[in-house]
Amino acid sequence: MSTTEPNGRLTIFDTTLRDGEQSPGISLDAAEKLEIAEQLARLGVDYIEAGFPVASQGDFEAVQGIARGVRGPVIAGLSRTHRTDVDRCWDALRDADRARIHVFISTSPQHMEHMLKMDGAQVIAATRAGVARAREHTDDVEFSPQDATRTPLDFMLEVLAAAVEAGATTLNIPDTVGYGIPWDFGALIQYIRREVTGDYIASVHCHNDLGLATANSLAGVQAGARQVEVCVNGLGERAGNAALEEVVMALAIRPDQFGGLTTAVRTEELARTSRLVSRLTGYPVQYNKAVVGRNAFAHESGIHQHGVLAERTTYEIIDASTVGQVGSQIVLGKHSGRHAFADTLSKMGLVVSGPVLDSAFARFKELADRKVEITDADLEAIVAEELGARIESAFTLEALEVSGGTVGVPRARVVVDCVGTKREAESEGDGMIDAACKALRIATQVDGHLTGFNVSAVTGGVDALGDVIVQLEAQGVRVSGRGVSTDVVEASARAYVNAVNKVLRVRSRTDERSSEIGP
Amino acid sequence: MSTTEPNGRLTIFDTTLRDGEQSPGISLDAAEKLEIAEQLARLGVDYIEAGFPVASQGDFEAVQGIARGVRGPVIAGLSRTHRTDVDRCWDALRDADRARIHVFISTSPQHMEHMLKMDGAQVIAATRAGVARAREHTDDVEFSPQDATRTPLDFMLEVLAAAVEAGATTLNIPDTVGYGIPWDFGALIQYIRREVTGDYIASVHCHNDLGLATANSLAGVQAGARQVEVCVNGLGERAGNAALEEVVMALAIRPDQFGGLTTAVRTEELARTSRLVSRLTGYPVQYNKAVVGRNAFAHESGIHQHGVLAERTTYEIIDASTVGQVGSQIVLGKHSGRHAFADTLSKMGLVVSGPVLDSAFARFKELADRKVEITDADLEAIVAEELGARIESAFTLEALEVSGGTVGVPRARVVVDCVGTKREAESEGDGMIDAACKALRIATQVDGHLTGFNVSAVTGGVDALGDVIVQLEAQGVRVSGRGVSTDVVEASARAYVNAVNKVLRVRSRTDERSSEIGP
Repeated sequence: MSTTEPNGRLTIFDTTLRDGEQSPGISLDAAEKLEIAEQLARLGVDYIEAGFPVASQGDFEAVQGIARGVRGPVIAGLSRTHRTDVDRCWDALRDADRARIHVFISTSPQHMEHMLKMDGAQVIAATRAGVARAREHTDDVEFSPQDATRTPLDFMLEVLAAAVEAGATTLNIPDTVGYGIPWDFGALIQYIRREVTGDYIASVHCHNDLGLATANSLAGVQAGARQVEVCVNGLGERAGNAALEEVVMALAIRPDQFGGLTTAVRTEELARTSRLVSRLTGYPVQYNKAVVGRNAFAHESGIHQHGVLAERTTYEIIDASTVGQVGSQIVLGKHSGRHAFADTLSKMGLVVSGPVLDSAFARFKELADRKVEITDADLEAIVAEELGARIESAFTLEALEVSGGTVGVPRARVVVDCVGTKREAESEGDGMIDAACKALRIATQVDGHLTGFNVSAVTGGVDALGDVIVQLEAQGVRVSGRGVSTDVVEASARAYVNAVNKVLRVRSRTDERSSEIGP
Repeated sequence: MSTTEPNGRLTIFDTTLRDGEQSPGISLDAAEKLEIAEQLARLGVDYIEAGFPVASQGDFEAVQGIARGVRGPVIAGLSRTHRTDVDRCWDALRDADRARIHVFISTSPQHMEHMLKMDGAQVIAATRAGVARAREHTDDVEFSPQDATRTPLDFMLEVLAAAVEAGATTLNIPDTVGYGIPWDFGALIQYIRREVTGDYIASVHCHNDLGLATANSLAGVQAGARQVEVCVNGLGERAGNAALEEVVMALAIRPDQFGGLTTAVRTEELARTSRLVSRLTGYPVQYNKAVVGRNAFAHESGIHQHGVLAERTTYEIIDASTVGQVGSQIVLGKHSGRHAFADTLSKMGLVVSGPVLDSAFARFKELADRKVEITDADLEAIVAEELGARIESAFTLEALEVSGGTVGVPRARVVVDCVGTKREAESEGDGMIDAACKALRIATQVDGHLTGFNVSAVTGGVDALGDVIVQLEAQGVRVSGRGVSTDVVEASARAYVNAVNKVLRVRSRTDERSSEIGP
């Protein structure tokens, strides 16, 4: 029996910046990761897994930036069991107020045979060595046996016992391939807690391949796990991880089922956190997503509407305002000044100053001329784009002229500024966006390939802001870029330029993310 | 104890066309519903809940069309307990090979007090009367106590016993507000099966407000439910219903957890069904959606990719081809003829002929001139748009010219054909799409308000087809329209015209959907 008895608090370990960032096409730079980490701190998560420092210089710097800049949550970094990996992880984390090293190794026969090419004794020895080395750096060490749900139980118990002996304080059980079924996974956690002695916290890390990540996580909690690893919007490899917002709200809405266990999450920040992560990753949130989807509190049918108007609880178990899902408010108009603008942003938790504030304000005025209602969601979108563009931008879009339709060939002319030099180019295309991108490719001389394209309207109505996210593959890297405008072709061109700038920033680093791993 | 013992088959009751269609902004017309129903039959669901006939003339006709046209699954219709409702439901269903009437009434104190304004005795009497009347029409009658999870147990047992006595053959337990937790909901089903005697099948209907719909459904199955109510892509009120694809794949991947229970679903049709429903409803599927999301089988991290290349099962528990998620294949080029075109469509399960085939082929040739690779997803998109436009279209888009950019004001000129008469209009706008929509508003004289706008690229690459879905509110109705083109502004204009045509079709019916309800 574990000597750590259930207490009244569930630890929320957010891995949006590590497992979430492993989603295809997501490539956050250090500034974007820091922005998300700051919002996670505001949200009140207990741990931020900031990345996998050994994976690349970029990952190292991102983890270091968060360890140095973000206060509140404990900052965690992922590490394989190798001594050099562990040391590198610690180098990135050492400036944090509180830091955790998260050591992992695969334990399933499939992984040991096909990837590690190690036998059981070697895996146990590596576990001991890695955890022990981590403990030399910090008292807070987590260990994960990767692909736990497909690992023979006896062997897993041996590995876990070795980890605890070597000093692991949290044992995390990952359902790496999303194979678990709630009752089965809960029984596994219960069994481990009974059989592995020592002073540790049990943790769960569930993937969503069968749509069961949230349920499996909760079954783990019911079985005694006191840490849950989650991602905002359920991001992560393949079908993603358990969604932070779902796990947190299940505990909040059904305290009767979890012995009154609470989290430190400020639920009213959930909707904003979801929007920020969606915007920076380029991953849209589906309308019918639980808790943070735009329909989560919408009622279509007459009787449902009637019911909700008569008494909210007839069809709603969550009050929309408790998760920050409130109707878009009109916050500013075309006559608002710079001070009111900055003030409104800061009330929204968007602290910007200097050139970013200047350019965001300029974009706001330009927008206010074209659009009657400026909502907080519009402001978030503008600031997000300006933040994305703020660092080392090689190119800025100076002018764009396009024409097209069903008659004649779509055509675009662009002017970009490259550190003071104007470059102009023209192109035809299959559509106006295609023409604009081709012209930009000529002007920037960066030969990119668009692999993804997503437009969403920030707010409803014909005068809605178009929020375009493109995924661009160029020079061996894949990045996303974002652009916002009332015109979708202009937004696309802005997103394209934003992505090209990112490619150049990534390429300007000498080393590359060579490999990435994780439970 | 129920006398119906668990057998080897789980009944899949699909309610995409009833509960799914209650999602905000979804408004399928009869032709679209029929198209989805045909695909559901191909997929192999056991039941199709086609709609709620009493809600409106449109709903009635849609149910009737499906009852008359779709073979294979049993066709179900929803009905309140009123005798007139039940009779109207039967009128819509009567031409089906096999038909079920699904009778429901609310049983929770919240619903009885605020909506029904009925006491317990009245609810029980209404249940008896509704079910008995339904049994006069058909031997296959389902009964649902709405908001079951918030209904006091003793009262629910009384209602359920009354329903079975009156002749209900399926008892469906809806977690209407998504309040259930798997172990709790499973225990409820077990309790009901033990306490309610008689010859019936237990069924579950779970909502996803806490992200637990699939898990709760499976917990119900483990507790003895032999029918699961699901929607494709997890559509439905608020955060939606349990996702068909998740429930089906959980059983397929973990037979050990469900005593080898099987479904009749042809899993290789799951991906296509998901795409069709997404396209017709205008609801995008999030990238990281389990089973049918585009990332469900994508691997980003180096080690994961390495693992999967070495041995697929290292990080995948589902083989992508078993759910029809295979890479887009190049199926046709610009030199393909009409016969090859029709042949390819029919191999894809898209049976079109006559004018729809003509116009789809014309669009294909036009597209093949602009785009090198035509994939099956592209073809699906074109055919879907042409099918959407095939009936009683008042307007067709004849010509579009647009210009814009950062210099000057965005402008559009359109020509539409209105039953032989050309109407031309010009407008400026905040963006080119806005300008095009404003010009179309002038030309069609339908004063609409765009409430939603979504663009997705059908396939990757710069020459991707843009698939635009708009949601338009006009003349008191809300519809969605779809347009496909390599140019996003043209696709938007097509979608707008498609939506305007739908508004006119809906308005041409005298009566309106007055109220809609459901578990």
